[in-house]
Amino acid sequence: MARFLKDRSQKLGTAPGAAVFVGKKRTDETTIHIIDYTNKEIREEFVSEASHLSGLNETPTVSWVNVCGLHEEALIAEIGSYFDLHNLLIEDVLNTGQRPSFTDYDDYFFLAVKMLKYDRERDYVDSEQLTFVVGKNYILSFQEQLGDVFDPIRDRIRKEGAKIRDRGVDYLCYVMLDTVVDHYIHIVERFGDKIEVLEGRILGKAEGDLLQKITDYKREMSYLRKVIRPAREACIHFSKSDSTLIHKTTLPFLKDLEGLASLSAESVETYSDILSDQLNIYQTTVSNRLNDVMKVLTIFSVVFIPLTFVAGIYGTNFEYLPELQYHYAYPIFWGVLITVALGMLFYFRRKKWI
Amino acid sequence: MARFLKDRSQKLGTAPGAAVFVGKKRTDETTIHIIDYTNKEIREEFVSEASHLSGLNETPTVSWVNVCGLHEEALIAEIGSYFDLHNLLIEDVLNTGQRPSFTDYDDYFFLAVKMLKYDRERDYVDSEQLTFVVGKNYILSFQEQLGDVFDPIRDRIRKEGAKIRDRGVDYLCYVMLDTVVDHYIHIVERFGDKIEVLEGRILGKAEGDLLQKITDYKREMSYLRKVIRPAREACIHFSKSDSTLIHKTTLPFLKDLEGLASLSAESVETYSDILSDQLNIYQTTVSNRLNDVMKVLTIFSVVFIPLTFVAGIYGTNFEYLPELQYHYAYPIFWGVLITVALGMLFYFRRKKWI
Amino acid sequence: MARFLKDRSQKLGTAPGAAVFVGKKRTDETTIHIIDYTNKEIREEFVSEASHLSGLNETPTVSWVNVCGLHEEALIAEIGSYFDLHNLLIEDVLNTGQRPSFTDYDDYFFLAVKMLKYDRERDYVDSEQLTFVVGKNYILSFQEQLGDVFDPIRDRIRKEGAKIRDRGVDYLCYVMLDTVVDHYIHIVERFGDKIEVLEGRILGKAEGDLLQKITDYKREMSYLRKVIRPAREACIHFSKSDSTLIHKTTLPFLKDLEGLASLSAESVETYSDILSDQLNIYQTTVSNRLNDVMKVLTIFSVVFIPLTFVAGIYGTNFEYLPELQYHYAYPIFWGVLITVALGMLFYFRRKKWI
Amino acid sequence: MARFLKDRSQKLGTAPGAAVFVGKKRTDETTIHIIDYTNKEIREEFVSEASHLSGLNETPTVSWVNVCGLHEEALIAEIGSYFDLHNLLIEDVLNTGQRPSFTDYDDYFFLAVKMLKYDRERDYVDSEQLTFVVGKNYILSFQEQLGDVFDPIRDRIRKEGAKIRDRGVDYLCYVMLDTVVDHYIHIVERFGDKIEVLEGRILGKAEGDLLQKITDYKREMSYLRKVIRPAREACIHFSKSDSTLIHKTTLPFLKDLEGLASLSAESVETYSDILSDQLNIYQTTVSNRLNDVMKVLTIFSVVFIPLTFVAGIYGTNFEYLPELQYHYAYPIFWGVLITVALGMLFYFRRKKWI
Amino acid sequence: MARFLKDRSQKLGTAPGAAVFVGKKRTDETTIHIIDYTNKEIREEFVSEASHLSGLNETPTVSWVNVCGLHEEALIAEIGSYFDLHNLLIEDVLNTGQRPSFTDYDDYFFLAVKMLKYDRERDYVDSEQLTFVVGKNYILSFQEQLGDVFDPIRDRIRKEGAKIRDRGVDYLCYVMLDTVVDHYIHIVERFGDKIEVLEGRILGKAEGDLLQKITDYKREMSYLRKVIRPAREACIHFSKSDSTLIHKTTLPFLKDLEGLASLSAESVETYSDILSDQLNIYQTTVSNRLNDVMKVLTIFSVVFIPLTFVAGIYGTNFEYLPELQYHYAYPIFWGVLITVALGMLFYFRRKKWI
Repeated sequence: MARFLKDRSQKLGTAPGAAVFVGKKRTDETTIHIIDYTNKEIREEFVSEASHLSGLNETPTVSWVNVCGLHEEALIAEIGSYFDLHNLLIEDVLNTGQRPSFTDYDDYFFLAVKMLKYDRERDYVDSEQLTFVVGKNYILSFQEQLGDVFDPIRDRIRKEGAKIRDRGVDYLCYVMLDTVVDHYIHIVERFGDKIEVLEGRILGKAEGDLLQKITDYKREMSYLRKVIRPAREACIHFSKSDSTLIHKTTLPFLKDLEGLASLSAESVETYSDILSDQLNIYQTTVSNRLNDVMKVLTIFSVVFIPLTFVAGIYGTNFEYLPELQYHYAYPIFWGVLITVALGMLFYFRRKKWI
Repeated sequence: MARFLKDRSQKLGTAPGAAVFVGKKRTDETTIHIIDYTNKEIREEFVSEASHLSGLNETPTVSWVNVCGLHEEALIAEIGSYFDLHNLLIEDVLNTGQRPSFTDYDDYFFLAVKMLKYDRERDYVDSEQLTFVVGKNYILSFQEQLGDVFDPIRDRIRKEGAKIRDRGVDYLCYVMLDTVVDHYIHIVERFGDKIEVLEGRILGKAEGDLLQKITDYKREMSYLRKVIRPAREACIHFSKSDSTLIHKTTLPFLKDLEGLASLSAESVETYSDILSDQLNIYQTTVSNRLNDVMKVLTIFSVVFIPLTFVAGIYGTNFEYLPELQYHYAYPIFWGVLITVALGMLFYFRRKKWI
Repeated sequence: MARFLKDRSQKLGTAPGAAVFVGKKRTDETTIHIIDYTNKEIREEFVSEASHLSGLNETPTVSWVNVCGLHEEALIAEIGSYFDLHNLLIEDVLNTGQRPSFTDYDDYFFLAVKMLKYDRERDYVDSEQLTFVVGKNYILSFQEQLGDVFDPIRDRIRKEGAKIRDRGVDYLCYVMLDTVVDHYIHIVERFGDKIEVLEGRILGKAEGDLLQKITDYKREMSYLRKVIRPAREACIHFSKSDSTLIHKTTLPFLKDLEGLASLSAESVETYSDILSDQLNIYQTTVSNRLNDVMKVLTIFSVVFIPLTFVAGIYGTNFEYLPELQYHYAYPIFWGVLITVALGMLFYFRRKKWI
Repeated sequence: MARFLKDRSQKLGTAPGAAVFVGKKRTDETTIHIIDYTNKEIREEFVSEASHLSGLNETPTVSWVNVCGLHEEALIAEIGSYFDLHNLLIEDVLNTGQRPSFTDYDDYFFLAVKMLKYDRERDYVDSEQLTFVVGKNYILSFQEQLGDVFDPIRDRIRKEGAKIRDRGVDYLCYVMLDTVVDHYIHIVERFGDKIEVLEGRILGKAEGDLLQKITDYKREMSYLRKVIRPAREACIHFSKSDSTLIHKTTLPFLKDLEGLASLSAESVETYSDILSDQLNIYQTTVSNRLNDVMKVLTIFSVVFIPLTFVAGIYGTNFEYLPELQYHYAYPIFWGVLITVALGMLFYFRRKKWI
Repeated sequence: MARFLKDRSQKLGTAPGAAVFVGKKRTDETTIHIIDYTNKEIREEFVSEASHLSGLNETPTVSWVNVCGLHEEALIAEIGSYFDLHNLLIEDVLNTGQRPSFTDYDDYFFLAVKMLKYDRERDYVDSEQLTFVVGKNYILSFQEQLGDVFDPIRDRIRKEGAKIRDRGVDYLCYVMLDTVVDHYIHIVERFGDKIEVLEGRILGKAEGDLLQKITDYKREMSYLRKVIRPAREACIHFSKSDSTLIHKTTLPFLKDLEGLASLSAESVETYSDILSDQLNIYQTTVSNRLNDVMKVLTIFSVVFIPLTFVAGIYGTNFEYLPELQYHYAYPIFWGVLITVALGMLFYFRRKKWI
């Protein structure tokens, strides 16, 4: 519930730039993880207090500070102060209902996207807010809870001589976004497979959960669209930005990211359209089936109703009913019945109902 | 009724710029409230005559004049004259059917939006016109009646040392708009919750008020779209404006406001689409249910109609009806009936109807 | 009929710029009305010959020449010649199927819109072509027949000291357009009221004319869209034009006009969407009602068909039918009937049909 | 068949710029007609060989070369060589499946549109490819077969002193395009009339061919859209082109052409939407009619089924059936039947079914 | 399955620019084919090792290197290194789920499109990734497997004196793209023919596979749209690119290519819309047919149910049932029956049901 919009009621009436957490608390403890590297050295540590971050933005090393857990508003605000961040930015970091976006604040830029999580059992997608602040030589990333898709990136950074170690924070930011968008495509793909499987079942026999599935997938597509479309916008803004923090060598990568984001957004549209088509076709199938049911009813009724009537006639107790006494009446009666029945059946055959 | 468009017939044929009130009178008295502040001092008063406002636009303090009640056309025109406002602007202030918009008149700028009110009992949204005139050191806000969403802002202004006291009118205007847009999101959210709850009920048993609810929410979404879409446009124009009245430090806030307005507009679209999907799925559910009803009818009819016919045959009064005299006729008759019935049931089983 | 497009067959094959009247003749006589004013003086007259207009474009006074009736092609062409108008413009004036548009011919600009007329009895909108030519100190307006929405403007011009007397032709042109667009909104509003009333009836009992009304209003909305959308475009071109004939002081008014035109166009879209929703919901209601009808039929059939069958069994004339002789057969028979009936009813109750 | 796309299989695998005819041969002979004029003189002739065209592009007269029949690829290529045309252009001239477009080749420009033909009997539109090459003082027009809409233009050219004789090739090209687009509107209009007539029939009694008509018109609208939309684009490109071949005095005419093309494209959209609405409303009408049918069936069944059951009871042959002997049983029996029937009718009356 | 999106799971977590093959292996062996030509000479060979390509980018000849088979990641990376290609480009070449796109890397540009394959038997389209790298004097093309649509191009190159031999790599690239897009149109055309044939069948008698066909074609149109739309974008970017590698003489060809790509994309939209219309009309046809079925049932039931009831009355065994003894009762009884039946039929005739 309320996946589509976060409850912002806590925030109503507060000053803009106020550090207020909006969302559901997903972790008890805030974890701060620092990776500090040059192409020669690497230092990694978990710190418990924000004060360890003081001065990080002045060292020449690339510093990636990853913060998991956003409910300790004061802590986040403190982190912000060490990096001279705008109040508004802190507010946006704390607001998990933030719309994916790219904002350039001269000395640093800010990126908000959603990280998608796919619940395999329930065919259900949930999202976690992920925000970046990228400065001259640091990158802050904020997540709602521990557990993300960045472990392969960390491994690459740890490997000595890896290309990522030679490049700056803009490239690191790109790599992280690229991973996030790759996961978008991965998830859309999973739904795509399931949606393509549905198709074969629509024209088959009615199955109870088909409509349920179409409904579910349509809702998930709405959700994915809501997440991915503004993320694509953010990627395009990122790639088109003239921020001095982005090196020229990173630009082709950002261009590529743009294409990837477009691919994921277009695929969501394609699958949405396919689902709408499926629903339409399913409706037609239901109507066709009703036609079949009614034809069976009609054929039986129309054949037997006149027969029953004729039988009723000769079940009457009129005293002077001449046919009843006639010796061959009964066989003739049967003859009439069979003729009527065959006539009816012939009529339906001509109508192509049987 | 007529929520979507205000009756402008009073205005037909009047000169442009004529101070004519368009709308429903919502209050008997016009209230004028002034907050006049610098970062050091604050003065607050309710005045009953417009003449108290004379000269306010020349003091260096930030003056926020809030006017509730728009039916006294002469009063509003008088206020306008103290601030040298364009006639057209006065006309727009008085026209409660004004389209949300941002207009830059060199010396001041004008903003019109709607303030939404949510009627919890009837799941119904109503709106009140809210217009701003922002000059060098004053801000005029016009509302249709007392009671607004700005009390937290007033409280913040009253607090000594609050940041809002250090900033100019452009920031105050932003804060007010931000509050209004935050309320948009808050209201969309409430409908969103209700709409997401509907979904679970659609595939369940038919419930009488489901269609009513979908109808209601669709209408409310149409209404919200009509209010929020041009408001987003106005926010974008505000943020992109090159008015000299907007300080550079306010720009990031306006950018943020833009994102917020887009979020609310997109959410309305998302929920509109979800409702359309729900209606579609509900229609399919209704068709499915009809199929079920017809299957029951058909199965019963098709099983019993031939049986009744056979019974009718042996209810005839033909004198020479050999089977009737045969001693085991009756049990055989039953045998035939049961065989026919089972045959029918087997046929339906094979068709997967039962 | 043919409201949507005018029959242009008269024109097929003529040279561009040929003065050919396209449309239905709506008046027998062409009327030419002149108002010639400065802020001091005013002269008003009806003239019967175009030659009276000669030289008008050279006087310093503001001259408003209003021509009603377009079928006298030669007359219109003559008028054109006195004001040095482009042939093409004359052609456009005479073509009542002209698309609303704004065209700048350096020395003058040309505006074509539709004036809407609402037929209250038939809920029907018709339109009349209205074209303007605005030069340095004259304005020519062409209508298809007498009777327009400009009388309040004429009254204001006649009033000594009125602001309109101080301003130029560009402002007069704006005032006229403003009046026309105000009438658009007025008419959309009337339909809006009726459409909102429909909503309450859709979920109620079926009423014969509901579908008729939805059909009618949809068609009227199509018509309004066809008229208003290009009119909005024309207003935007007018307001964005860099014609030297438009004074800087008129610009805020044109901006306002733009907003008004957008409001009317958006309202048409909103009501169109609402009507589509209504039709959808009505369809679902019809399906629901069919379900109800079928349930009644099914319940009755299913309850009585087996009972009738049982009665039929004991109406047979088998000689050896042991139950018939049994003394308590009849009451037991009733017992069986009632049990079967109750069983059926219980079954339907469990299915929530009753 | 294949009206929507031409079979290009002949062309698959040929070099770009290869002179290959794509389409169906519509004439046996290629006809070349030349009109060569200044405002003083005019020369007109039919030539059979392309060599007569040699040097035409160097005379100061305006030369209009009209070629009917495109299957003689070599001939067309030869014509191209006399005017120094790009190979690609020759390819486009020969490809009758060409998309309407405007291309500027510095020394000349190229225009491709479709000429529509309306088959009155079958309510069917077919199109013929029409391409122009407009150079400094010549215009080449290529058609698929003899017979076009340009005779009035030829007549005007032949008239001494006609304005068209004073103007250049750009104007002649405009006049021809204007005629083509006028025919678009003329054809849309004809369908419009028929579509508006349909409306009255939808809510009336079912008529067999209504659905057929809606289907036909929808298809024709799809076809018109496919032809007219890119033609509008081509007109806009033509009018916006900065080719030196277009005189300033021709620009207002091109602007006018743009409006005309937009009008035709918008009308196609309007009628398409109206047809979709009509189909929707027709569907609802069909559902309503089903409801009526089912109500009749249900009322009859529900009234008579219980009556028949009661009659069945007293048709049983139980020996101890006390009511049968009772003297007034028969009238009482009738009383019961009538009461039951009236009760049912009263029930349906309350449900508003009768 | 998974035609719409390629399974990228192999790639999740790898570094950007990593040479990882994404897709289904379609060939066992990688084939490298080189055509090296000037307008005088031509050399052609199949090589098995990438090392043969070393230095090719420095010869003045035009070199077309065609690589079939992408699963040998190391080989592709090696090829890339000989031509100094960006890692990212290699990644894109290997990713067969790449979105069609055009990317300019200063020294060379990169183009990705899909080559469509039509499976005639199953009315099914499949695609193969096709990527180009175009440098100063070389063109690399990468395909997933042997067999393409470029043989006619190869033949033309082999022909001495062919125009293609005089032009550069940009033209060769254009020719290849043109061939690919020509095949798009060819395939859309084939579906178009089939879709137009469907139309005639929709209003005819129900045929079992019609719905299946509509479903299939809709899905294929979704697929074509997904392939062709971004391909059109790529063509437009190619044609609008200011890369120095594109000669001015190639520009008209690229413009033409743009038109061709637009034609194919628009045709897909047109056929998609036609299919949606067909589904709608088919649904209405199904409803109409249900109406027909129900009318037959209703007419029969309504005529015979009262008759059967009357017969039932006189089948009762009341002792004092005066009519039974009356001598003419039986003929009168028949008279009543026939009158009732005729009355019913007259009623239905008046309702236009028969």
